Amino acid sequence: MEERLFLEDLVVGQRFVSATFTVSADEIVEFAARYDPQPFHLDHDDATDSLFGGLAASGWHTAAMTMRKVVESVPMAGGIIGSGGELTWPRPTRPGDVLHVETEVLEVTPSRSRPERGMVVVRCTTLNQAGEAVQTFMPKLVVPRRPAG
Amino acid sequence: MEERLFLEDLVVGQRFVSATFTVSADEIVEFAARYDPQPFHLDHDDATDSLFGGLAASGWHTAAMTMRKVVESVPMAGGIIGSGGELTWPRPTRPGDVLHVETEVLEVTPSRSRPERGMVVVRCTTLNQAGEAVQTFMPKLVVPRRPAG
Repeated sequence: MEERLFLEDLVVGQRFVSATFTVSADEIVEFAARYDPQPFHLDHDDATDSLFGGLAASGWHTAAMTMRKVVESVPMAGGIIGSGGELTWPRPTRPGDVLHVETEVLEVTPSRSRPERGMVVVRCTTLNQAGEAVQTFMPKLVVPRRPAG
Repeated sequence: MEERLFLEDLVVGQRFVSATFTVSADEIVEFAARYDPQPFHLDHDDATDSLFGGLAASGWHTAAMTMRKVVESVPMAGGIIGSGGELTWPRPTRPGDVLHVETEVLEVTPSRSRPERGMVVVRCTTLNQAGEAVQTFMPKLVVPRRPAG
């Protein structure tokens, strides 16, 4: 991975693009069986009769897969540490989808009370092979300032 | 599980409380290795030197475990189907934490364009054994109206 980025290295509009990855039906079912055991995430036939109209990944599975790609593609010093944000799933992730994640810096704010760090708002958009968003997340991240010397 | 609830069965202020569950260090590390491979989620010693001051679950792991408990404790007709919402992690989930989820109905809105369903906003708060919130999530859920007849 490239050099680690401190608060001083970030500017509004800066973008990071992850590698692509393919989502399998097996992984969708495995995740759902453990964390979101609902018929439309577990079984093709049950899913066809649901609001989803076919097997769909749990939103939390899309979120977890997205996080892996953010960790791989956004080289913040100190890692990716967020306190939350607005999360949307505009459409479901489907078996065979080829996803990637684009992260854009929206705000960079030095902390007034903690001179060694700042707050960075980013928008992480998870896109499928058709360029459609399957998830957006706008977390506030804690990012360290570059140490003196 | 109790009877399934349709839109007509829901009122603002209604609450649902899940069973408790214990979070293990092994599960924290297993989830992180797959979806959030950062030192403070993977290794006790590395975590001690981080902003977390000790091993902490990925927020997405807290979210996934929370979803399981919401599915088990909130008997919406049609299942728990959300389009997203505001997500916060006020403090980390730690190994040995005993968590449960409390869900409160905040808004119940019949759809104007889709007479067979409505929108329900809930707040899902994930609490540890000290009664401290480790996660809040305020999703908009799609809930069907009771079929006629």
